Amino acid sequence: MLGTWVVGIDLGGTNLKVGLVDAGGAIAAIQTCPTEAQKGPDHFINIVDQLVDALCVQAKVSRSASILGAGLGTPGPLDFRKGIILKAANLPGWVNFPLRDRMAGKLRVPVVIENDANAAAYGEFIGQRPRASQPSMVLLTLGTGVGAGVIIDGKVLHGHFDNAGELGHMIVVPNGLPCPCGQRGCLEAYASAGAIARRFEQAVLAGESSSVPSGSDAKAISIGAHQGDALCRRIWDEACLYLAIACINIQHAFNPEVILLGGGMAEAGEFLLACVRSHFDANRWHLHDDFPRIELARLGSNAGIIGAAALAWEKLASASS
Amino acid sequence: MLGTWVVGIDLGGTNLKVGLVDAGGAIAAIQTCPTEAQKGPDHFINIVDQLVDALCVQAKVSRSASILGAGLGTPGPLDFRKGIILKAANLPGWVNFPLRDRMAGKLRVPVVIENDANAAAYGEFIGQRPRASQPSMVLLTLGTGVGAGVIIDGKVLHGHFDNAGELGHMIVVPNGLPCPCGQRGCLEAYASAGAIARRFEQAVLAGESSSVPSGSDAKAISIGAHQGDALCRRIWDEACLYLAIACINIQHAFNPEVILLGGGMAEAGEFLLACVRSHFDANRWHLHDDFPRIELARLGSNAGIIGAAALAWEKLASASS
Repeated sequence: MLGTWVVGIDLGGTNLKVGLVDAGGAIAAIQTCPTEAQKGPDHFINIVDQLVDALCVQAKVSRSASILGAGLGTPGPLDFRKGIILKAANLPGWVNFPLRDRMAGKLRVPVVIENDANAAAYGEFIGQRPRASQPSMVLLTLGTGVGAGVIIDGKVLHGHFDNAGELGHMIVVPNGLPCPCGQRGCLEAYASAGAIARRFEQAVLAGESSSVPSGSDAKAISIGAHQGDALCRRIWDEACLYLAIACINIQHAFNPEVILLGGGMAEAGEFLLACVRSHFDANRWHLHDDFPRIELARLGSNAGIIGAAALAWEKLASASS
Repeated sequence: MLGTWVVGIDLGGTNLKVGLVDAGGAIAAIQTCPTEAQKGPDHFINIVDQLVDALCVQAKVSRSASILGAGLGTPGPLDFRKGIILKAANLPGWVNFPLRDRMAGKLRVPVVIENDANAAAYGEFIGQRPRASQPSMVLLTLGTGVGAGVIIDGKVLHGHFDNAGELGHMIVVPNGLPCPCGQRGCLEAYASAGAIARRFEQAVLAGESSSVPSGSDAKAISIGAHQGDALCRRIWDEACLYLAIACINIQHAFNPEVILLGGGMAEAGEFLLACVRSHFDANRWHLHDDFPRIELARLGSNAGIIGAAALAWEKLASASS
């Protein structure tokens, strides 16, 4: 296959995904495998190197001639200037590791690293519109936790300490439910797929009845809510209420053009959107009529590699200009 | 007096303030007078024109030779691209008025308009550090309401719909106290000088006892809290708690280098700071140690004219480059 590619890498605590992505954001080939984080970052780098070989075979491209760079979305916190992963809850022992430069040394191409939620947000941003436009966008990824990324004027917002856009940990209920992060009342404690399953289980264990069995996940609970199960409906509705409050706060803080909902919980599609939009409209102010659109993310689990790759393409473009 | 100046204008619902400001942010002369908003925007423009004459006499400068431009901080919402004030709660009847161009026509110099809270934030930003640096900062102005402005990479954040940084209307208590904006549970409903006076009065009318008399303002209530009055202390402490939660949410959203507290309530100084910082530390996460500094604003009621003037200076610089 002719053309040039960068490697998009999505490093998760459980699995890693690597793809060849062209300058337009199209994926030519994808490989996934277990991260085996406990074997350490050098092992990870070797695995990625092997996967790039496999991708080149799969897509019939010459690695030395066609692979120009790589973008890596990783849990953090990171030090972007130094390209270092400071630590990560899901990657035990990966502390102060110079991920960018070690990966670049192994792959022998320039590497960009980005927070995984930011990379996904950038992927959705690229997927939303022509690259030339410069609007603003916020992505909330509703999975085990709530990841988030903020795009302002076409760029990922990093903040002074590289920790901007941690919107899953905005406090929506003062002194509310404990969050794994150590705070109380975070959005993530109410409105993630993980929180929905946890809250359902606690209610069932406390004796509340439901047509949905104990141990169900957020998907089963959303279906139960859709079918009218009272407990499922209450928990789902509360999650949507807090998502709506988060969207109101995001509207007041960033005033983006669009707020996207992605991740496992967003697989409920219109059932999620309608509920969040309804709470948004019931709780927002009415001083003016211009509000962000609340929509579903489009790229699913490929957003991370597309976004990371897009950042790598931009670094290549700025280096050659 | 030799040199060149721009006019900084701070348009409030009650008073307007106009100053001559040099390129370094120093004020050569100030004039204030009632806004008389009910007489309409054309009357306001005429008054400003007369005040500029008075300023030039006061500072002994030649108006035609020395006044290069003007910056105007105004309530909004605004349309920045068109320079229009869309409407303003405190300026009844000022609807869709082309404030920038009409002011420029009268003063015969280029005019920049900015949201008043953003102008104050930019003034504090300019006052904080050398102009060359590009950090991020958030200002919360705790007056009758809670105004706010967000500086990212040295620039005022406007957002897609020109309404970014309305942080006084972030919801901190779902279904909480009603806010004049129409929402419930806004930061402004708990943590403004106005809210503190209102909540105190309601408690006294409901029969709670206090050593501080009915009808007291936030300043008297803060002094009462400092002196140990139980009711004053409870209301003050709750205001500080919600300010701290707002600061945590600001830290997660923007991750700025510094969060400044200004406005009437900030006249309590260290008594306010210590209380907010203590709640911030008790409620924030502990995943890392890098947090925005929470500090007092420095410029007091001159922040608006200094910030508006600085924006005018920048427009002049970019027009001539």
